[in-house]
Amino acid sequence: MSDKQCDIGFIGLGVMGSNLTLNIADHGYRVACFDLDQNKVDAILAKDKAERGQQAARVEGCNSYTELLSKLKSPHLIILSVPAGEPVDHVCHHLIDAGVQADDIVVDTGNSLWTDSVQREEKYKGKFIFFSTAVSGGEVGARFGPSLMPSGNPYAWTRIEPVLKAIAAKVDPDTGKPIESFSPGNPVKDGEPCATYIGPVGAGHYVKMVHNGIEYADMQLICEAYHIMRTAFSMTPADIAQTFRQWNQGKLNSYLMEISAEVLEQQDPETEQPLVDVILDKAGQKGTGLWTAVSALQVGSPAQTITSAVFARSLSSLKDERVTASTQLTGPQQQQLTEQEKHSAISQLEHALYCSKICAYAQGFQLMATAAKEHGWELDFAEIAKIWRAGCIIRAVFLQSIATAYEQDENLANLLLAPYFSEQIAEYQSDWRQSVSQATLNGIPCPAMMSAISYYDSYRTAVLPASLLQGQRDYFGAHTYQRVDKPSGKKFHIQWSDPARPQVAIKK
Amino acid sequence: MSDKQCDIGFIGLGVMGSNLTLNIADHGYRVACFDLDQNKVDAILAKDKAERGQQAARVEGCNSYTELLSKLKSPHLIILSVPAGEPVDHVCHHLIDAGVQADDIVVDTGNSLWTDSVQREEKYKGKFIFFSTAVSGGEVGARFGPSLMPSGNPYAWTRIEPVLKAIAAKVDPDTGKPIESFSPGNPVKDGEPCATYIGPVGAGHYVKMVHNGIEYADMQLICEAYHIMRTAFSMTPADIAQTFRQWNQGKLNSYLMEISAEVLEQQDPETEQPLVDVILDKAGQKGTGLWTAVSALQVGSPAQTITSAVFARSLSSLKDERVTASTQLTGPQQQQLTEQEKHSAISQLEHALYCSKICAYAQGFQLMATAAKEHGWELDFAEIAKIWRAGCIIRAVFLQSIATAYEQDENLANLLLAPYFSEQIAEYQSDWRQSVSQATLNGIPCPAMMSAISYYDSYRTAVLPASLLQGQRDYFGAHTYQRVDKPSGKKFHIQWSDPARPQVAIKK
Repeated sequence: MSDKQCDIGFIGLGVMGSNLTLNIADHGYRVACFDLDQNKVDAILAKDKAERGQQAARVEGCNSYTELLSKLKSPHLIILSVPAGEPVDHVCHHLIDAGVQADDIVVDTGNSLWTDSVQREEKYKGKFIFFSTAVSGGEVGARFGPSLMPSGNPYAWTRIEPVLKAIAAKVDPDTGKPIESFSPGNPVKDGEPCATYIGPVGAGHYVKMVHNGIEYADMQLICEAYHIMRTAFSMTPADIAQTFRQWNQGKLNSYLMEISAEVLEQQDPETEQPLVDVILDKAGQKGTGLWTAVSALQVGSPAQTITSAVFARSLSSLKDERVTASTQLTGPQQQQLTEQEKHSAISQLEHALYCSKICAYAQGFQLMATAAKEHGWELDFAEIAKIWRAGCIIRAVFLQSIATAYEQDENLANLLLAPYFSEQIAEYQSDWRQSVSQATLNGIPCPAMMSAISYYDSYRTAVLPASLLQGQRDYFGAHTYQRVDKPSGKKFHIQWSDPARPQVAIKK
Repeated sequence: MSDKQCDIGFIGLGVMGSNLTLNIADHGYRVACFDLDQNKVDAILAKDKAERGQQAARVEGCNSYTELLSKLKSPHLIILSVPAGEPVDHVCHHLIDAGVQADDIVVDTGNSLWTDSVQREEKYKGKFIFFSTAVSGGEVGARFGPSLMPSGNPYAWTRIEPVLKAIAAKVDPDTGKPIESFSPGNPVKDGEPCATYIGPVGAGHYVKMVHNGIEYADMQLICEAYHIMRTAFSMTPADIAQTFRQWNQGKLNSYLMEISAEVLEQQDPETEQPLVDVILDKAGQKGTGLWTAVSALQVGSPAQTITSAVFARSLSSLKDERVTASTQLTGPQQQQLTEQEKHSAISQLEHALYCSKICAYAQGFQLMATAAKEHGWELDFAEIAKIWRAGCIIRAVFLQSIATAYEQDENLANLLLAPYFSEQIAEYQSDWRQSVSQATLNGIPCPAMMSAISYYDSYRTAVLPASLLQGQRDYFGAHTYQRVDKPSGKKFHIQWSDPARPQVAIKK
């Protein structure tokens, strides 16, 4: 191939980067690629040739940033897949030295903190156009169709859009389900692509962060359902896997439900025990769930189910303390269930999981709405729900219902208020309450389900006891209170230390 | 008075500052004071003379930083009570310009973020010794005895100690209860002072931050008990106040319980309705509870009850949405109780509140222990519990039991493991479970009580479903897992996409 023939430059050929490169090439684009590690460049060239044949190869290797630029059509479109943080700026500076121009576009696909992206757009203004897209779906997603959450300069988006929509996961518009192909060189071309422009720079990574927070909650809820069945219903992992497979045929159909069944069916090759019984119960985390919880606290959006899932992981990591505590702290006698009772308890639990899941998603969307207000973003929640239907970890038919709810009312204040979801909870809440109540009486922890039910009940309560709380705060700290019968914002204070306790109106 | 006669310089004469100054003067110290607002200087001089008489006045006014220094014995001891943040540095720079010396001590008593104190000690090294003390107890505490959490340079502490121990709240060592006097010029001198050296700079403000986090949880729990009695037991505010007064005679005895009863008894002077019914149920917050929750997430300490209290305030502020939701989202039929049932439900609720409170405090102390480990602090938890027995908002006899638990075992991993508390929960947990279970079935939100019970049940569970969670994470993200039967830290991965699914040991 001669110079100036490549459509896209790709920098960073780790697992994600090389898979994204091959995915892009699958869609007919010629890609010039570069990595500081020449072995990685050689490896992807070999892979491209092996998959496509020598003649049809579409990936070219480069030895330097300068060579990469020399192979690209102008204005240049360059995609980065390098570790979040300092490496992104490192590459950007090298690109500037190599002669990148003000109208060239550099797209960060890493797992960046959203505020870093905001700073970078500003920092590189005039040097090149910094754009970013969050990528969900892990290595398989990167290769055969991820969910993409791009945000930044709208002009840049018009150039990037065809590429991202081509490589994204696809959804069957009739069923709302993923259309899948895991065959190199033979990508899915039809269907609705899981890529939509999210908004100004940073918005895409913020939305991806909340996706991960929801993912934490979703996983924790499934684990609690497993724990209840295992402990209170005395079911085996194989029994529970079968139950999960049944649930996966209904409203709870999702990728996470499916892989949970697979994990529970998995035998440990070494001991021939169920794998789940040999895996150490200390959960790790990489930060995005925590970031979501911190952001929820900071913007004042009650994402308690997501947060409880983060804390559940922290608590799990105290394994030694828990083992000690299990011998010292007492619990209630476990109730024995008849087969009939067990059957009906399993059905209740399915509904408890479903209602809790609705609340976790409601919290995630509420958080995005609150953050959007704070940052001046106009997020399209129907579109966001749609691009999560395939390619990402929380993919599920459930997201089709969320998309529909926002399509019917784009100003929906809370997912719980959508007629579909309020009816679903009305129908199943009695089971939900029974499950949580029984777990409480039986001493089985279900922090996420409990936080979900308290979220639902708090949200639907017109008068909360925060009135007493405001009274307490006024008493000890003169923090003042508002009155239900006076204009909003007008503040009052009782002079508590005065025996007559007069009420004083506080001037603003 | 002539020059060089004052013991202490005081800068910042707002409500807290002037009360602290008068408190210091009550204990025989001569104080030179300064504020940018000359009216505040005049006001405190007048107050000092009015309280003590012209001849016995112990407070002197100053017109400048220079004059203030000129009136102080060397090395100078200067206390600041200015708003947290930039104003602290502003005053520090003026003091440097006015000639403060390297061995002079400047004590910040403001509501500073603990990390700011750490930076300031470093920043002013060589100019003067920066020291800080957190102050709890509001304006009344400042005047007649606050709880003080000093931290910083140990040499500085030896100079400050007599002053802080003099002005602090005092506890009767026999009963563990506050000794109170609200009489100007006639302070409490005997008893155990609520001031103890916490550790290196920042540690005191950190401990104060956690105090406030616990305070959030304590208040929320009381509000939930109120809400259950009001809604499920159809009790009036006056009935509930009376119940709180009874509870206040027992294990739940605390300042917050006492003032809650007073708030509930308070009639609105305008409408003659119970005040609590005219106070708008939107709770405010000033940040310290939020900081505690964020810190808990960051250090990985499961402070879910504290966090749920922060989110309960956020949720309360969505008043308009809640009012709308209350007409659209259904709940269960409220169960009607007979008088006999109500009587026993009230008793169960008392125990539910008590057990939940133990968990909230356990979380706070666990958080301090985790943070101490991270920052290399050696916190004395028995001493910390002791200085919270008087002067501060969460003061309660309960803290005496916590102090005793840590005195009996200074390496106690968790308050729940102290024999006294584990026995208490063993005795009352059945009531606790009944209360929470009934609230769940009746649709009354109790996020803090629920989070407390799930904390207790999670902590005492030897095998949590985090094993399934690690399986899920390994499935979709190759995050690896550890095995229960292999050395800690050794990592394994199943090749899930391979039909044979072999297990691979990951080299570190």
